[in-house]
Amino acid sequence: MNKHAVYHVVDVPYAYAKDKDTLTVRIRTARNDVKVCKVYYKCRYDWTNPFEVQEMKLMSQSELFDYYEADIKVEKNRYRYFFELLDNEGNNIYFDDRGFRGEVEKPEATGFQFAYIGEADVYEEVKWLQEAVVYQVFPDRFYNGDKANDPENTEKWGGEITQKSMFGGDLQGIIEKLDYLKELGITLLYLTPVFKSTSNHKYNTADYFDIDTQFGTIETAKELVVGCHERGIKIVFDAVFNHSGSDFFAFEDLLKNQENSKYKDWYFPYEYPVSLEKINYYTFANGAAYMPKLNTANEEVKEYLLKVGEYWVKEIGIDGWRLDVCDEVDHQFWKAFRKRVKAVNKEAVIIGEIMHEASSFLRGDELDTIMNYPFKGAMVDFFAVRKINEVQFDNILTMNRTIYMDSVIKQMWNLFDSHDTKRFLTECDGDVEKMKLAIAFQFSYMGVPYIYYGDEVGMAGGDDPQCRGCMVWDKEKQNTELLELYKKLIAVRHENKALVHGEYKEIYLRNNVVIFERSLEDETIIVAINNNDEAVKAVVEVSAETIDLVSGKAVSIENELQLDKMEFKILKVIR
Amino acid sequence: MNKHAVYHVVDVPYAYAKDKDTLTVRIRTARNDVKVCKVYYKCRYDWTNPFEVQEMKLMSQSELFDYYEADIKVEKNRYRYFFELLDNEGNNIYFDDRGFRGEVEKPEATGFQFAYIGEADVYEEVKWLQEAVVYQVFPDRFYNGDKANDPENTEKWGGEITQKSMFGGDLQGIIEKLDYLKELGITLLYLTPVFKSTSNHKYNTADYFDIDTQFGTIETAKELVVGCHERGIKIVFDAVFNHSGSDFFAFEDLLKNQENSKYKDWYFPYEYPVSLEKINYYTFANGAAYMPKLNTANEEVKEYLLKVGEYWVKEIGIDGWRLDVCDEVDHQFWKAFRKRVKAVNKEAVIIGEIMHEASSFLRGDELDTIMNYPFKGAMVDFFAVRKINEVQFDNILTMNRTIYMDSVIKQMWNLFDSHDTKRFLTECDGDVEKMKLAIAFQFSYMGVPYIYYGDEVGMAGGDDPQCRGCMVWDKEKQNTELLELYKKLIAVRHENKALVHGEYKEIYLRNNVVIFERSLEDETIIVAINNNDEAVKAVVEVSAETIDLVSGKAVSIENELQLDKMEFKILKVIR
Repeated sequence: MNKHAVYHVVDVPYAYAKDKDTLTVRIRTARNDVKVCKVYYKCRYDWTNPFEVQEMKLMSQSELFDYYEADIKVEKNRYRYFFELLDNEGNNIYFDDRGFRGEVEKPEATGFQFAYIGEADVYEEVKWLQEAVVYQVFPDRFYNGDKANDPENTEKWGGEITQKSMFGGDLQGIIEKLDYLKELGITLLYLTPVFKSTSNHKYNTADYFDIDTQFGTIETAKELVVGCHERGIKIVFDAVFNHSGSDFFAFEDLLKNQENSKYKDWYFPYEYPVSLEKINYYTFANGAAYMPKLNTANEEVKEYLLKVGEYWVKEIGIDGWRLDVCDEVDHQFWKAFRKRVKAVNKEAVIIGEIMHEASSFLRGDELDTIMNYPFKGAMVDFFAVRKINEVQFDNILTMNRTIYMDSVIKQMWNLFDSHDTKRFLTECDGDVEKMKLAIAFQFSYMGVPYIYYGDEVGMAGGDDPQCRGCMVWDKEKQNTELLELYKKLIAVRHENKALVHGEYKEIYLRNNVVIFERSLEDETIIVAINNNDEAVKAVVEVSAETIDLVSGKAVSIENELQLDKMEFKILKVIR
Repeated sequence: MNKHAVYHVVDVPYAYAKDKDTLTVRIRTARNDVKVCKVYYKCRYDWTNPFEVQEMKLMSQSELFDYYEADIKVEKNRYRYFFELLDNEGNNIYFDDRGFRGEVEKPEATGFQFAYIGEADVYEEVKWLQEAVVYQVFPDRFYNGDKANDPENTEKWGGEITQKSMFGGDLQGIIEKLDYLKELGITLLYLTPVFKSTSNHKYNTADYFDIDTQFGTIETAKELVVGCHERGIKIVFDAVFNHSGSDFFAFEDLLKNQENSKYKDWYFPYEYPVSLEKINYYTFANGAAYMPKLNTANEEVKEYLLKVGEYWVKEIGIDGWRLDVCDEVDHQFWKAFRKRVKAVNKEAVIIGEIMHEASSFLRGDELDTIMNYPFKGAMVDFFAVRKINEVQFDNILTMNRTIYMDSVIKQMWNLFDSHDTKRFLTECDGDVEKMKLAIAFQFSYMGVPYIYYGDEVGMAGGDDPQCRGCMVWDKEKQNTELLELYKKLIAVRHENKALVHGEYKEIYLRNNVVIFERSLEDETIIVAINNNDEAVKAVVEVSAETIDLVSGKAVSIENELQLDKMEFKILKVIR
C-alpha cells in the first residue's frame, strides 16, 4: 500500500458536519491502490460496544489519488473513528490518529476524534442556490430602459467599446428584460456594481448606500427586486469592500484634512500629504489611484461596511452578495459579514470572487461559495483552446471538487467567462460547435451553471473591455440556434434534479471523450461528450434504455456509445 | 520523485502569516526523496519582475515524510508562489496551484496565492508563555493554609484517597507555598477549578462568579494573583464551559420550573419532567447527572460564559484560562471567547484541554495552545513503559510538531501526567532513573515543560483518584535528588533561550538513543539521551567542545558521544 498517499485530517473537508446529526468523513489514497476502504466509528464515550463499520464510497479519482467518503452518525454527535484500508493483495492496514497500524491496538484511545458537532458550527447549505442558473449582467451594457438618466457622453448602443465608454444601460432596462430572463429559465441574476460611481464598471464606489444616477434610484432598485421575485428570480448585488472609490466621503476627507482627517485610519497612507498624483497610499492592484484600499481591520470601517451588507438585504430585499477581490479582505471581516447578513436573511447567499484555491474561506463560516475560475480555466483549455486532454481536464475538476465540502461544491458558480475575461466564444475562435459542447458539460456537471449576458445569443469579445459589449437584442444578429440550446439545457437542468443534487461518477475518460453519470435516488442520467473532430465509439460497462433529454430520441446503450464528431448526449435512463 | 507524498495547501499550517509582513510556507515530501526544495515568490500583481527564490529549510523528518519551511516577504503582503523540487537524481519538478509541472507555464496565472495578510488575521504568539515552566495544582491536595474554611468531612492530610475525599487544601495554602514555587523556578501556575462547587475536583460549577468557600474568597483569589505576580509567576484558572454543575442556578431553575423555565434552552432536555434520577438530558460523558451539558449555541448562554471569561481576567487579574472539555464546545464560542478575553488583556493566554489532533482549534483565532496529550502518550510509551522505540517516539512528536504553526508548537503544554492520568513515576513503576531521562527530554524539547504538583518530589499514584494525592511536604519523604534535578533543569531552561525559542534538529536516532540539537542564533545545545540499560557509543557528525549544563563538566565531542546506561547529557557548545 502506498502510505505516502494516505491523507486524513479532522477538519474541513476531510471531516465536517453535514448537518447537526451527521458527520461526513473523507480519506485520500493513491489511485487504484486500495480495494476497499472502511470507517469504524462510535461515540467517543462508548467504552463497551464494538465500533460500527461502514464501507466508504469512492467519491472521486484524480490522476494521482482516490477519494473515499462516508456519512456517519452516532448518538449525541461525539465521534471517535478510524479507517481500515484493504489493498489489492488483500492486506489490510488500519489508520488512526497515530498513523498506520498493522492491528488496532487500543482503538478507543487512538482513534480520530471529532469531539462534538456544535450546532453553531454547522454549515447550512443553500438549496435554492444549488438549483439556480445564474445570469450575470454588466448593467451599462444590457438594456437602456430610461433615456432620461443617460450620462452626457452616452454612446450609440452597440458602438465601439473603450475603457471609458458609457452606453446608457440601466436598472429600468433590466426590469424591462426580466420576462426575457424568465423565459430563458434564469433563476438568479447577478449584477456587477450599481452603486454611485464615476466609472462604467463602478468598482470604485463613491456611495455604498445609493444607486448610481445613471442606473436609476433606490426606488428603481426596489422595483427591480420585486420584479425579479415576482418571476421566481433571485438577485445578488456586487460589493467592493477591498477598496472604495477615491471620491468616497472618507477618502475625500483624508485628501482634504490629511493627518487631521478622522478617516486617516480607514486607509493606508504611506506619507503626507496624501495625493492622487503621487499615489502614496495602498491601492487596489498596482497603483490604481482611484481605488484606495480600505483598512478592514479598523473597527469603524468594518462596522460601516457590515451595515452596507445588511442594508441592501434588509431594506431593498436583495438575495445576497457577490464580493469583489474577496481574498484581499481579512477572514475576520468575512466571518462577521456572514453573521450579520445571515441574521437579516438566513437564505441570503455570499459568493466570493476568488480565482484560486480558497479552502480557508470556504469552511462554512465565511462564504457560501466562490466564482469557480479553476473550472473556467479547464473549460477554456479543454473545449475552446484544446491545449489539455480529457485526463488533465478531469484532474483539474477533481482537485477542485475534493478540496471543499459537498454542499459548497454544489453551490460553485461554474462560469467559463465574465466581464474580466475573454468571452468563451472568442476563446473558441468563433466556433459555436465547441461552445455547445462546453455548455452541455456546464449544465450537466456539479455546480451552478453561469451565463455571462449575451453568451446565449452568440456574443463574442476579447479581453476587457471588449468582453463588455452591448447586449445584442436584434433577433437578426442573435444566434438563435445557440439561444434555443441554452433554453433547452436550462429546462433540462430544472426538470432533472439528478443534474443538480445527484452524485457524479466518471464512466469513461479517453481520447478527449468524457462520459459521466449523475444519479439521485432512482434517477440516473448519463452524459457523453465527444470533444473530437471525428466520430468515436466508446466501450462502456453500461447497458440501458435511455431518452436523450435534448433531442427527445430514444437511445439504447449496449456496452457502447456512438458519438458523432463534436457530439454530446444527455441521456436519462428509463430502464 | 514520489508525487503522492507532496502536500501543500494555502492554509494553516502550510501557509500562514508569521507576522503582518511575513508569510511562512511549508511543503511536505517523501522522506529523503528530495535533495533541494525551493520556493519562488513575488507580489501577486507583479507582472514584470522575475520571481524571487529561496531554498527552504528541512524543518522536520517523520517516518514517512520530510517537511520543508521558509519565511518569505513581498511588498504589501499579497503573495503568489510556487515550489521547485529537485530529486536525488537531479531531476526537478515544479509544483503550483494546478499540481505538478515539468516546466512552469504561465507561473503568474497558476501559482499558489496567499492573496493578502490581513492584520486582523495575524496570530500573535505569546512569548511569555513560550518561556514559561508550568506547575499544575489540584487545590484540595496542595496545602491547607486556612483550617477555618475546611469542610466538615476533611480527612487527615495524606490519608487514603477516594472519589469523595476532601483534604482541606485551599488558596491560602497556595499563597503560603508561592516562595516554594518561585524557588523551584515556576513561572506559570495552573489551578484546576476553584469556583463554587460541591465536589473535590470542582468540575461541576455551581457559581462561575465565586470562589468555593472551601478554597477561600474572591479576596483570597486576588491576594493569590498579586502574590504570584510579585514573584514573576503568572496564573491561569480552569473553566468548564461544556457543562455546569446540576446546582448551577439555571439548571436548578429548569428542575424547578421545567417546561416553563426561562433557562430550558440553556440545556438539552430530552423530555419533561427533567429529572436528576432519570438523567433525561444531555450530560458530560456518559450520563454524569451532576454535569448537565450547556447549550453554547444559545446566545444567552454564550454571553453569560463570555462574561465569566472577561471577569476573572479583568477584575481578579488572572493571566488566562485553561479550558476543560474544550473540544466539545463549538468553534463559534471559542472564536468569540478569544476576542473578548484578548480585548481585556492582550497577553492573556487560552489553553484548551484537547487530547487528540486539534488543528481546527489552533488556526490562531481560537486557542493559543493545548495540553499536549500526544506528547504525554509518547513520553509514557518510550521512557516509562518502553513499548515503542526511538523511531516511533520521534514519529509521534514529529507529526505533532508539523500540524501546527511554529508559535503554537512552542506554546504546547508538554505534560506527561495530570490529575486525569496515572502519575509518570507510577508509569515508570517507581524507577526514578526513567523519570530523570523523561524530564531531561521534557525540559530540552520544543514546548512548555509542565509539572504536575508533587512529581518533582517523587510522588506516585495510579489512575484517578490515586493520582490526586496530598502534596508531600515532609522533606524526609521527598525525593530530594529528583527535586534538585528539577530545579537544575528549570534553571537551565530559563538561562538558555535556545531551549525555548531555538530550532529543533535531530542528530541521531537509533537503538533507543535520541540525540538532537536546539539552536538559536549563535547558541547551540546538544541533547543526548540513552534510554537503554547499557552504555552506548553514538557516532555523530559533530565535533565540538561543550559544557554539560547539568553537571558543569567539559565534554569534548569528536564524532562520537559516549553515554552510560540511562544517561542524559545537555551540552552547550562553546566552540
